[in-house]
Parts: sequence; C-alpha cells; structure tokens
Amino acid sequence: MDSKNYDVEKLAVATVASHTAIQILRGAKKYGFRTIAVAGSERAASFYRRLWFIDDVWIADFSSFKQVAEKLRRENAILIPHGSYVEYVGWRQALEAPVPTLGCRELIKWEADQHKKMELLKNAGIPTPRHFVSLDQVNGVVIVKLFGAKGGRGYFVARDREELRRKLARIDGDYIIQEYIFGVPAYYHYFASPVYNRVEIFGADIRYESNVDGRNFGLVEPTFVVVGNLPLVLRESLLPTVLEYGENFVKVVREMVRCEMAGPYCLESIIRDDMSIIVFEFSGRIVAGTNIYMGYGSPYSTLYFDKPMDMGERIAHEIREAAVRGRLEALVT
Amino acid sequence: MDSKNYDVEKLAVATVASHTAIQILRGAKKYGFRTIAVAGSERAASFYRRLWFIDDVWIADFSSFKQVAEKLRRENAILIPHGSYVEYVGWRQALEAPVPTLGCRELIKWEADQHKKMELLKNAGIPTPRHFVSLDQVNGVVIVKLFGAKGGRGYFVARDREELRRKLARIDGDYIIQEYIFGVPAYYHYFASPVYNRVEIFGADIRYESNVDGRNFGLVEPTFVVVGNLPLVLRESLLPTVLEYGENFVKVVREMVRCEMAGPYCLESIIRDDMSIIVFEFSGRIVAGTNIYMGYGSPYSTLYFDKPMDMGERIAHEIREAAVRGRLEALVT
Amino acid sequence: MDSKNYDVEKLAVATVASHTAIQILRGAKKYGFRTIAVAGSERAASFYRRLWFIDDVWIADFSSFKQVAEKLRRENAILIPHGSYVEYVGWRQALEAPVPTLGCRELIKWEADQHKKMELLKNAGIPTPRHFVSLDQVNGVVIVKLFGAKGGRGYFVARDREELRRKLARIDGDYIIQEYIFGVPAYYHYFASPVYNRVEIFGADIRYESNVDGRNFGLVEPTFVVVGNLPLVLRESLLPTVLEYGENFVKVVREMVRCEMAGPYCLESIIRDDMSIIVFEFSGRIVAGTNIYMGYGSPYSTLYFDKPMDMGERIAHEIREAAVRGRLEALVT
Repeated sequence: MDSKNYDVEKLAVATVASHTAIQILRGAKKYGFRTIAVAGSERAASFYRRLWFIDDVWIADFSSFKQVAEKLRRENAILIPHGSYVEYVGWRQALEAPVPTLGCRELIKWEADQHKKMELLKNAGIPTPRHFVSLDQVNGVVIVKLFGAKGGRGYFVARDREELRRKLARIDGDYIIQEYIFGVPAYYHYFASPVYNRVEIFGADIRYESNVDGRNFGLVEPTFVVVGNLPLVLRESLLPTVLEYGENFVKVVREMVRCEMAGPYCLESIIRDDMSIIVFEFSGRIVAGTNIYMGYGSPYSTLYFDKPMDMGERIAHEIREAAVRGRLEALVT
Repeated sequence: MDSKNYDVEKLAVATVASHTAIQILRGAKKYGFRTIAVAGSERAASFYRRLWFIDDVWIADFSSFKQVAEKLRRENAILIPHGSYVEYVGWRQALEAPVPTLGCRELIKWEADQHKKMELLKNAGIPTPRHFVSLDQVNGVVIVKLFGAKGGRGYFVARDREELRRKLARIDGDYIIQEYIFGVPAYYHYFASPVYNRVEIFGADIRYESNVDGRNFGLVEPTFVVVGNLPLVLRESLLPTVLEYGENFVKVVREMVRCEMAGPYCLESIIRDDMSIIVFEFSGRIVAGTNIYMGYGSPYSTLYFDKPMDMGERIAHEIREAAVRGRLEALVT
Repeated sequence: MDSKNYDVEKLAVATVASHTAIQILRGAKKYGFRTIAVAGSERAASFYRRLWFIDDVWIADFSSFKQVAEKLRRENAILIPHGSYVEYVGWRQALEAPVPTLGCRELIKWEADQHKKMELLKNAGIPTPRHFVSLDQVNGVVIVKLFGAKGGRGYFVARDREELRRKLARIDGDYIIQEYIFGVPAYYHYFASPVYNRVEIFGADIRYESNVDGRNFGLVEPTFVVVGNLPLVLRESLLPTVLEYGENFVKVVREMVRCEMAGPYCLESIIRDDMSIIVFEFSGRIVAGTNIYMGYGSPYSTLYFDKPMDMGERIAHEIREAAVRGRLEALVT
C-alpha cells in the first residue's frame, strides 16, 4: 500500500452499501472520518442516502471495480471489505483492487476453496469436523457445502449414505462433505489490533436462518439462509479457549498465508455438549453477526475499553490510532 | 383533537399500566413530561407505583373508559394506545375516548376484522399469505386465526384438510384460514414521524411463544402464547425492502383509512428461504417487541439519531418536538 | 462478619476467575474498588490478567480454600460467590470460608439437596412441578435431576415409565424425578437490596444449551449443557407475578433458612401457555444469565435507576452505598 501518500488529515472510510455498511460508516463518522458508501443499484443507494452519517453514496458497476477503487484512492479512502463486497466484485477483483483495504487481502484467495479453509484451521490446532473424500467413507449424518456457499445458501444435510447419494446426484460443481456436528452453533467475533498488538474477543452471535430456525414441525426440508443474527453471551469458562483459537488463527495466517491479520474476523463453530468447540468455517473479515451491537456496543468490548463499542467504532478507533502513530501501513494491504 | 386548548408547558403522557407502559412512561419522564399510568387493578397499580418515573397511578374501571378519558384530558394528557389498552377498553370505546390519542385511531376499527387487515396489506403491495374461503380450497398446511386473536392466543395449525375440518368443528366465531408460510418469524418496528416527515425503521424482534418455542419434542400440540420477546438484527440487505413495506403501509392507511400514521407501528412477517418477506399481520401502534430496547435503545435508532433511543424515548421526542413547533395536532386523533 | 474491622476506604472486591467474574470485577473497578480474581489454573489466570480492570490475579488451590479466604480478609476483600466458586471449593468450604461473603451463605447448604430446594420454593407459595417419589407414580413425561447437577449436566428426560426405568438403571447417586413442564424456559434475575430495603427485578434470560437448542432433527438424545445465555424481555403483564415470587423467596429464606438475602439471585422457570409460571430451580446467588447485560446494562435496571446498569455494577453500587452508610454487615455473612 502506498498509504504514505495519503493525507491522514483527510482520510475517508469507504465500504460497499450492504452487509455491515451501516455500523462501519456510523463508527467512522463518530471518529471524524469522511464516509463513502458504494452501492450497486439505485435502490440500495436511495436507502443509504437517507442516513445522516454517510457523506457520499456512489453508484458503481461492480463488474469493473478497478475504476471505483482508483476513485476511492483519489479520495484518500480506506476500504473496509465485507462478505457482500467480495461476493459482488468477485475474489479476483477484490485481490487486486488498487485501494488500501483493511486486513489481509491474500486470505480471500484461500477462502474461495473450502479445502484450503479447513486446512488453515487444522494447522492452527483448531478442532474441525472430519471430512470425507468419498461417499463410501460416510457412516453417519453429514453436511455438504458447495464451494462459494454464501449467506447460508448452498448447504444441505444428509442423514445417511443413501440420502447423500441421492442429493449429490442433483448438484453441480465442487463441494465438501463434512461430519454433521451435534451441538449448538456459536459464532465468535475477533478484532486483530496491530496498534495494541493483541487479539480481542469482540462478541458472539447465533445466525438466524430460514427455514431451519422457524416453526416447521418437520414438514419441510431444512434450509440455512441467514436472514438475521441473535446476540449470544458465552459461558465465561469458554472464553480462554475461544481467545486461544482466535490467536492461533492469526499465527497460522502469518505462517501459511504470509500476511498479518488486521481488523475483524470470525470463527464459526458448533459447541458440543462436552463443551468442546468444533470450528467448521471462518471469515477473514467483518461478519454480519457484529450488527447485533450496532450503536450501543458489545459486552465484550468492555474487556479492553472503558465503555462498550460496536465493531464499526472499533475499526474507526484502530484507523485513527494507527494514523496518529504513523502506522496505517500495518492495517491495510 | 382540541389539543389547541392544551397547555403545552404542562403536557402529561398517559398510558394503560401494562404492555409497554414502562418504556413509554420512562421515556416521557426523561423528556420532562408528567406521567400517568392507568391501572385496571390494585395489583397492577401497586407494581407501577414503585417506579420512580411515574408521577400518578390511577385505578380505573375500563368498562366505562369515557370518564377516565375526560379526566386525562383535564390533566393535559396525551394517551399512548397499545394492544392491552385496546383489549381492556374494547375497540369501540378506544375509538371514541375523548382524549387526544397518539396515531390514527380509525385503524383500530379495521384491525377488528382479519379480512380488512389483510386487504389493507394487499393494497399496500405487501406480500401476504394466500387465504382460503372454504375448506375445499385447502391443499396444504394452514394456520387458522380467530377474529380478535390476542397475544398469540386464538391460533392453530392444521397439517391437512382432515385435521383442519376436525379442529374447525371445535371452534365458535369468525376466523381466517391462511396458508402456513415456512420460514422464520420476524417483526419490524417502525416509527411514523410527522415532525420529520419520514418513516423510520426502529427495530426488529422475534416473539417468544409458549409452548411452540420450548423443548417439547413433538409431544404436545403447538400453541403460540406470547410471553416475551427476543432482539433480532436483520440482514442488512433486507432493510430497503423492510423500509419500503413500512412506507407503503403509511400510504395505504392515508388512502383507504383516510388518516395519517403517527408514532410506532409494526409489520409481522415470515422471511422465507428465498429472502422474500410475507406479512401475515400488523399492529397500528406500539408492540411489546419494542420492550427489548427499553433503557438502552435500538441499534436502528442510530440510523436517524446520534445515540441509541428506545421507543418510549422516541415517542417522547416526537411529542416534545411537535409541541415546540406547535404541531401537536399532527400526532393525535 | 467482622467487617467492622475492615477499612472501608480500602475495600477490595474479589471473586473466583470464572462464571461472572468479568462483570463483577469490571463493575467493582468502575465504583473505585480494588479488584482480585482468584484463578484455579495458570491457564485461567493468564486470561484474566489481560483485563484492565483486575488489579490482582491469584492462583489458588481450591482444595484448601481456607488460606485463600484468610488472605482475602487481610486484603480487606468482600467475596462475591457464584456457581463456579461453590462448585470449585465445595459447599462445605464455601460455608466456612473466613472471609465476608455477599449474601446468605447458609442457603448453600439447602441448595445441595434438590428436595430441600423444592421445599423452600413450595413454602414460598411459588408453583413448582410435581415430583414423584417412586417410579409407579409416574404417568407422563418426566425430567430427572441428579443431586449436584451443574451447568445443565446431570439432567435427562424420559417420555414414559418404561424409558424412565431403563435410564434410572444406568445412574448412581441421589436424584429427583419431576413432572416435565411443557412451555418455554425463562430465568428471572433479582437483586435483594438491604440498602434500599427492596427486591428489584433485574433481568431475564434463556439458557443456550447443547445440544437441545441446536439443529438436531431428532437424531440424538437431548442434553442440557449450558454454553451461553440469550437476552429475554418478558411480557410486561408477567412482571407483577415475577416480582411477587421474588419477594416471596426472600421471605421464605428469612423464615426457614433464618438469614437475609442480599445481592443477586435467580428463579428458574417454565412459562406455560396459560401464562402460569412454574419454578423448577433457583440459585441463591448471581447466575451467568446476568452476563447478557455486561457493560451496557439491563433494561429492567431502569425501573430503579436513571440509567442502565449491569449486575456487576449493581453489586458494586450496593457495596459502596452500604459502606457509606456503615451498613456493610447487612450485605455479608
């Protein structure tokens, strides 16, 4: 990044107008940054234009994001990436966009491949579900994830080998077959801080998924489309392990991906009834689950700061502190 | 309303002591209004009397609410109506109570008829469940709602025509038969602001219903009695649609009911796994789901204000601003 | 207690490093107390050492807690007991630890016996589940709780007498067989304040239990291990009853246990679909469910104070007020 050429007095914070843009830009405004939302449609733009804390709403063609990125750079902007950004512009464009982008960008490439994702977790010493390379190995309930599964789409459960065979026959493309873990879902939000040189536990949520979290009386096939998030507070005795896994993740990214985590990320798990945590997925950047704290802050942020903060504020806080210390390079790639 | 005769320096905010009275009166007190709770029993009164932010707790006979309303008017009070108020005094008395009442009172009449309610939603261009006028049309899972169903009582599910026939045989009175929508429930809170001339998304919740949300292992018939509410944060990409439906609702009320929405209201939906929103019910006034934000505010209120606000505070804010601008008439009927 | 010998200018607040230690010690620090966490392992200690609001983290051998207690006393500490403390040191050591301890310590003895616990609730006029002394009495779904069941472990459900017989054959030790109540779980947090001479409703939560709250499609035996907590707001019309049961509990402890409740406690219930509340368990001290309010406070705390407070802050507030008024003896045993 050539953020050295940036005028730190005039920094803007930018993101794509969806996913977690509200908290990101509200937090940025609270810390005095200029804010830019990049929308993909007039419909989205008109929603974000109403929000008092957004200075500029642009409409952009995501299929040629390079120009947008160049314009963002001219505006002294730091781009905060999120899942919808990667989905809209595609991981190849996201990798190469010529604008300083929060966090370890290279990780996006790893996330495009379910097998590489799981390999990273395993190498971090984080327990993961068994996976099966052939149908014959399967001897229990499994979950199948298509590559590029997003927002809960592209998952299905099979109760046994026969059901699996039948369902696989219907699908196209790459997938991973994993042991189905019985327990309860829990998603952990972290913040990797180059400024304070630490990993912070920032929160936890449960995804609210249609239709599996509805009242369906076993009458329909379960689906897993994320439509919202619910706040969760963890049993306090789980926190040392949750933090350890978060720290291990930063180390493994340093070693295998060869870059530094900076900003928010997430480990996605099932907690079994023996209190063991099995991580089946991660996100290398902010997840929508952090929206639960929008405006009033996360209980866990009080572990590190004297008042609650939401993830948008936490990001803005880090950018401001890094700018003050002349260390913006440590935050972006 | 003859609120012109009201002394705006001495306004009181009043409501019936149940439902959402705590947040309404706490918010009012925070904004400097005198506060009055009208209780239906000594038992309720003694609970509300302990709360520091309630100036007066009256005990009233709801079967002759007119006198209470006249007394409220003499006290310079604005009445904040809620579901328990309408239930306790009945919709006819609520329509005619001689006291300035927040919002579009005429809507109460429409809400007494499930068919008219659905008609209003359909005319707003809001997707609703199919409904069936005769048993013969039914060819799947349905939900039956009795007219005047309240707080989750008066609903039942039938898996097929046979079960429906059997269950209908047992009931008396009017009802509506609707297609049962598979997905997850989500309730959207709005605030219609005459002062700022806009509709605000204020929050979202999930109702916590006994026994359907319990651990019942399929051993009992599901029931839907609301005993609490859980906070929900929506997937951000749903917000433009959620806001659009909220705005459409205000327009349809203007056209068909011929009055202006003012203050809180709610659309009640299922979100399907294709992310479509099907609205099966609405409330023309504050819902108990807003209690989740009591005291520390809704994440969504930060879309409009610089700090979180709860719905009680939002109402009080609107009344104060309207009073300052001499526009109280725009708030009440 | 000989807290008379305590230097109230130099009071410390101490607790065992687990369960609710974070909110307890953060609240204490906010009110200006010195804070001490007593950890059982280096692993736990190293987690708590990172937290800015903890002055000292000790590592202790819980099998000989007497020495720790004596050291705490020399440090002018008040010990805040919680479920993990009682579990780690055992109820006998907890009863006798020579350090001023918040609340009614004698209650710990009653809690070690499921039958005595239920007797206390019944004597308070609080509805409880029926229990069965012999297998022959059982004629429906039951839940069995082993004595000393902790954190959700040591419970199982049996659908009928046959299943019960089979499952009982597998277990050792004392247990209680209770009618299984259909409805939804709800846990009520209270604060008994000697300073203000009142019982406060402080909050409500739902436990998040593995695996029963997961997506298990009926494929595994339900288990009930608590791994987190979810915030719940109660239907407002339930509050007078919830408060009444909380106050009754304080009275029955005064009469039967012969001591005064002080500080947090909890009633644990199922709410049935007729809105009746059946209490199946209590905790005489802070429960982990209060962690949901950590840092930003409980909505219910605004019933009593002008801004939201979490339970850690509420405890610290009480200690400070009692110290100022020379009434610390009323808080501890």
